Amino acid sequence: MKKSTSLKIRLPALVLVSEIVFIALYAGFVTYDTDANAKLQDNMTNPMENDLYKDYPVFVDVQVMIFIGFGCLLAFLHRYGFGGLVFNFLTATFAIQWAILVQGYFQFYSGGKIHLGVVNLLSAEFACAVVLISYGAVLGKTSPVQLLVMALLEVLIFSITEWAVLNYLRINDAGGSILIHIFACYFGLGVTFVLYRPSLNNGHANDATSYQSDILSVMGTLFLWVFWPSFNSAVTFKGDDQHRAILHTFIGLSASTLTAFALSALLSQRGKLTMADIQNVTLAGGVTVGASVDMMISPVAAYILGAVGCIACFLGYKYLTPFLAQHCRIQDQCGIHNLHGLTGIISCLGGIWGIMMANEDTYGPSLYQTFAHRAPMEGDPRLHELQQLIPGLQPGLGRTASEQALFQVAAMFSTIGVAAVGGIATGFVLKLPFLASPSDECCFSDKPYFQVPSDHESVAVPKLPEVPEDTKV
Amino acid sequence: MKKSTSLKIRLPALVLVSEIVFIALYAGFVTYDTDANAKLQDNMTNPMENDLYKDYPVFVDVQVMIFIGFGCLLAFLHRYGFGGLVFNFLTATFAIQWAILVQGYFQFYSGGKIHLGVVNLLSAEFACAVVLISYGAVLGKTSPVQLLVMALLEVLIFSITEWAVLNYLRINDAGGSILIHIFACYFGLGVTFVLYRPSLNNGHANDATSYQSDILSVMGTLFLWVFWPSFNSAVTFKGDDQHRAILHTFIGLSASTLTAFALSALLSQRGKLTMADIQNVTLAGGVTVGASVDMMISPVAAYILGAVGCIACFLGYKYLTPFLAQHCRIQDQCGIHNLHGLTGIISCLGGIWGIMMANEDTYGPSLYQTFAHRAPMEGDPRLHELQQLIPGLQPGLGRTASEQALFQVAAMFSTIGVAAVGGIATGFVLKLPFLASPSDECCFSDKPYFQVPSDHESVAVPKLPEVPEDTKV
Amino acid sequence: MKKSTSLKIRLPALVLVSEIVFIALYAGFVTYDTDANAKLQDNMTNPMENDLYKDYPVFVDVQVMIFIGFGCLLAFLHRYGFGGLVFNFLTATFAIQWAILVQGYFQFYSGGKIHLGVVNLLSAEFACAVVLISYGAVLGKTSPVQLLVMALLEVLIFSITEWAVLNYLRINDAGGSILIHIFACYFGLGVTFVLYRPSLNNGHANDATSYQSDILSVMGTLFLWVFWPSFNSAVTFKGDDQHRAILHTFIGLSASTLTAFALSALLSQRGKLTMADIQNVTLAGGVTVGASVDMMISPVAAYILGAVGCIACFLGYKYLTPFLAQHCRIQDQCGIHNLHGLTGIISCLGGIWGIMMANEDTYGPSLYQTFAHRAPMEGDPRLHELQQLIPGLQPGLGRTASEQALFQVAAMFSTIGVAAVGGIATGFVLKLPFLASPSDECCFSDKPYFQVPSDHESVAVPKLPEVPEDTKV
Repeated sequence: MKKSTSLKIRLPALVLVSEIVFIALYAGFVTYDTDANAKLQDNMTNPMENDLYKDYPVFVDVQVMIFIGFGCLLAFLHRYGFGGLVFNFLTATFAIQWAILVQGYFQFYSGGKIHLGVVNLLSAEFACAVVLISYGAVLGKTSPVQLLVMALLEVLIFSITEWAVLNYLRINDAGGSILIHIFACYFGLGVTFVLYRPSLNNGHANDATSYQSDILSVMGTLFLWVFWPSFNSAVTFKGDDQHRAILHTFIGLSASTLTAFALSALLSQRGKLTMADIQNVTLAGGVTVGASVDMMISPVAAYILGAVGCIACFLGYKYLTPFLAQHCRIQDQCGIHNLHGLTGIISCLGGIWGIMMANEDTYGPSLYQTFAHRAPMEGDPRLHELQQLIPGLQPGLGRTASEQALFQVAAMFSTIGVAAVGGIATGFVLKLPFLASPSDECCFSDKPYFQVPSDHESVAVPKLPEVPEDTKV
Repeated sequence: MKKSTSLKIRLPALVLVSEIVFIALYAGFVTYDTDANAKLQDNMTNPMENDLYKDYPVFVDVQVMIFIGFGCLLAFLHRYGFGGLVFNFLTATFAIQWAILVQGYFQFYSGGKIHLGVVNLLSAEFACAVVLISYGAVLGKTSPVQLLVMALLEVLIFSITEWAVLNYLRINDAGGSILIHIFACYFGLGVTFVLYRPSLNNGHANDATSYQSDILSVMGTLFLWVFWPSFNSAVTFKGDDQHRAILHTFIGLSASTLTAFALSALLSQRGKLTMADIQNVTLAGGVTVGASVDMMISPVAAYILGAVGCIACFLGYKYLTPFLAQHCRIQDQCGIHNLHGLTGIISCLGGIWGIMMANEDTYGPSLYQTFAHRAPMEGDPRLHELQQLIPGLQPGLGRTASEQALFQVAAMFSTIGVAAVGGIATGFVLKLPFLASPSDECCFSDKPYFQVPSDHESVAVPKLPEVPEDTKV
Repeated sequence: MKKSTSLKIRLPALVLVSEIVFIALYAGFVTYDTDANAKLQDNMTNPMENDLYKDYPVFVDVQVMIFIGFGCLLAFLHRYGFGGLVFNFLTATFAIQWAILVQGYFQFYSGGKIHLGVVNLLSAEFACAVVLISYGAVLGKTSPVQLLVMALLEVLIFSITEWAVLNYLRINDAGGSILIHIFACYFGLGVTFVLYRPSLNNGHANDATSYQSDILSVMGTLFLWVFWPSFNSAVTFKGDDQHRAILHTFIGLSASTLTAFALSALLSQRGKLTMADIQNVTLAGGVTVGASVDMMISPVAAYILGAVGCIACFLGYKYLTPFLAQHCRIQDQCGIHNLHGLTGIISCLGGIWGIMMANEDTYGPSLYQTFAHRAPMEGDPRLHELQQLIPGLQPGLGRTASEQALFQVAAMFSTIGVAAVGGIATGFVLKLPFLASPSDECCFSDKPYFQVPSDHESVAVPKLPEVPEDTKV
């Protein structure tokens, strides 16, 4: 007997119950942040200095990445275009709502209230990106009900991990390579490990692209590419730190894009480019520069990080992903381990190198701003001296470069560990029988969950023999 | 004998005559605004304080909504993709040009000249949005000539209404729910009422979507969704007012998106999602928070407004739209009555509630800024006192909350009335015989107006029986 | 024997060697600009006054134009969608990387180092736009290897030309109509002249659009249209100059859009709109206002420039492009001579008119800022006087309006000359035998260079007889 994939009761029940909970939590615990509260403005307030004007431009760019960039990128399967684009929309909206509340409790809570401003939304979008990356591992093999349950659990586990890392380990990770990409990757791999479907290792008629779906997916790549500098620089210090973050991200992406084209042609059978490489591997540089994105690593280092990350990502797609699927029960549909895992680890190493090389010769006194945890502790006379040079410098932890590097390593391994365990646990929850999971033969198809137009089946014709080549290579 | 749909003479005649009129009006009456006039800059001018930098970021976001968001959203029909996207482009460009002049006369006119700055373009884009919303009611059933005539008349009637409401009734409506959405809706319904085509009530082969057109339309939805906070906050006060507007819009949209998915699954026959719901109903929250978007209504109120608006909108699509078509001669092709009318009315009620609840306890003295008409009148000693607390506070009308609420109600009803009558009158003009209106069988098709590629007919195959379900529900 | 089109060795060899050169140059010569260098910040630095916040918003808009706007626009051929979108991506990334270094040497070089900030990226994107415009002339007839070689040479020749014009001729050309559009056009025509393929004059089965490719291309047009004001105003003075640039670009584009629709209907055989007109001719106004975009030309002049440019562009597509192909060996695939060449010349004439009309009555003392070369020379007592009125005014060359106009003419003709010669020389390089050029029958197809999905051949069916018209005109 086939399991039902009807969303009729399950999806509304989950969503509406969640909404009631959200409303209750909003009613009880959410109020406006200082800069959004009319009462806290006075005759000294300059409206144009409202934090809104620092945060909103970046927020909008990240919105485009989340809803349009990710959505289109995930719509690369010829019969799962609705699923890629629309479940991304649903999951993102849900994850952001939930993250506003959970992160709000951990990071923006005081006086019994969560204080809400655009900065919370921005922060919640990062948590949402985590969920969407993990979605890549199980794309087409999960129902929207499962995706929402995954979002519920992953946002919770991520927010706790983020809070612990930021409060106890205190790392440098402006682009989120450790917290966002590595967490998302190993969580997603944990989930897909549990949801292993042996029959999919033999290929699936729906697991293919069409001409239009490939084009749509490249558009998603381009939107991500264009706005990635905003993503990587969203939470840096303003001024020169953010300026460098934008330069490095652009350079890293450019390097990985050129390298991806070169490798795609070099390692293909007949000297032809593969669209999947262009859709994914080109973006590797955005991740690999992440952990060191605001440091004075020099432009050439950003270039090399982009190129190296791209090579690792490319080889991962070519050799590691099939290996993991065949031998390790890890079916990573979008290859998130290549684009987010391997690159995240390289990024972390780049960050450690950046930390070890940083000194006052290169940074001047700004060193203690970019590496806030290396600033002298409260009470240290050197702190007062530095505060003359950098108004508003916060007391730090007085760490040395090596100490900071060790904390980075600790953060990486503990993030991998928590994410993998959290993902496996979440995977078992997703195996509960009433979550409308699709049967193997219905994977990668919109049909179980959407009323599809009559041309859905005909949008690509994968069974036709390929027409003879008109060029001999 | 069929009426001709050739655009050969009619479209160029209308456009070129209009352009000559526009040129004459520009030449005679349009000059630069203070901040765009080189002569008015002096050695006290700080270029970075030019109004451009306040208005342009929002203007660009609204441009994306108008030209790409609306355009893609309206391209949901499988054989009317060119029409949806391209007539939107034509109509928008035309409406903005015309609105710059008409609104310029009513709002930006002094010393015998219209003063032109980016703020005029932004204002004209709102007038343009009105026309495009109304276009939704008659999509696929009108020629581009008819659309331009409609734009000519609607921009004129809208600008007069806007001027009258802003100058005499003086309402709070930052997001334009009353002026933009309600006006556009009832004007469009008036037009389509007159253009009633009985035969379309029996269905039409072209009135369907294809896989690609559905995806394109969802992309339009996503562009509108992402930039809607900019739209709703474009004309608020800068600072905390705009900050709240962005928060409320985001929260309202999120609530309506989740609710739309839940209802779509709940009320479909086989527990499957309907793309039309995702394309339209998800956006309801953006409208319902509009009238109260800058008030201290609390985040939870924005959430509830979004969810309630979504429910009304969804039920409207399901029950009211078919009813209006069958029994009231109102064929509302895109269901604008649901997405803009019902939600606009709910938004207006939300605004009234927000006005009634507003007091100095919640807002502090800012109360008289957000609710400018409640500020004391010129000469009132309390005004001087408040001006110490809020530099630059303008004298108001000394209205009480209840008085303001009554003016909101008056504005809503008079807007509905003027719009409906204006729409009906415009409908009769559009029935003039030489406007290239399509025959019933050519509705919802690009063929009458475009040289279409040879695969136009084959882009979807609506006559094929739907392939058997591979999942039993 | 057919020539091989395999990219297996050639593309990686070219790209990887280039990357090694880039890395060496970055390592040896590229350092951070003042505003991106941590060490140069001190306790007087206001982070929010970092140049980043002036340049980045414009940079992001131009990024969208380059990667998404151009990419989609060039994807209009039914079997060359990957090529249009993806080769644009590759070429753009490569050209920007290279331009950062070459322009860096000519414009941002001091103390033995290229100083890198977001302003360099912005400048490099303009050089990249030059290459992408030229690509339009040879679209579908060149391999990606040829495109990269073209980018290498064109960026070099362009940067030298730009440097010479800016340093010696010193012109007013805020929108880049002379330097960018005219250079790109005549360079591209030079290349395609040498790469002449007689057989293509008889038509080609692949040289056609499909319903989806036309829609994709219109989306590209819309992205270009929406962000063009940012492009044209990117390098103006901040404040009122930039404000006017945005107004004029918007007005010019609006005028050319309306005119394009009118002409498309008027001059088509059966009164139907042609998508190619809407994809291209609508944009003409953005170019024609370019050279005078920051001047006080008055709004009506921008309108007329847009309309006149559109007429020239339209007639060019209709009569000149076929003539050039049949009689002058110039096969201009996208008609860049119409959209960038004719309009560029008109723009240059508009600029000269703007210069001749400019005087202190209209501009006040700002005259010497907008027309920097008309400012008095160092030592002239009038300079000191003006610097009281405009703080920071730089000494100029004391040119009269007529002198400036002559330099504009000189710049136009020398740009045309250098571009055409450079393009012809580049064309001969591109004819080298090992650059994977496609055979005539494989032109306008993705098959030689991409692993295409199985539905690639079926995406449009150009051989089917067109179905009978259902409307008689």
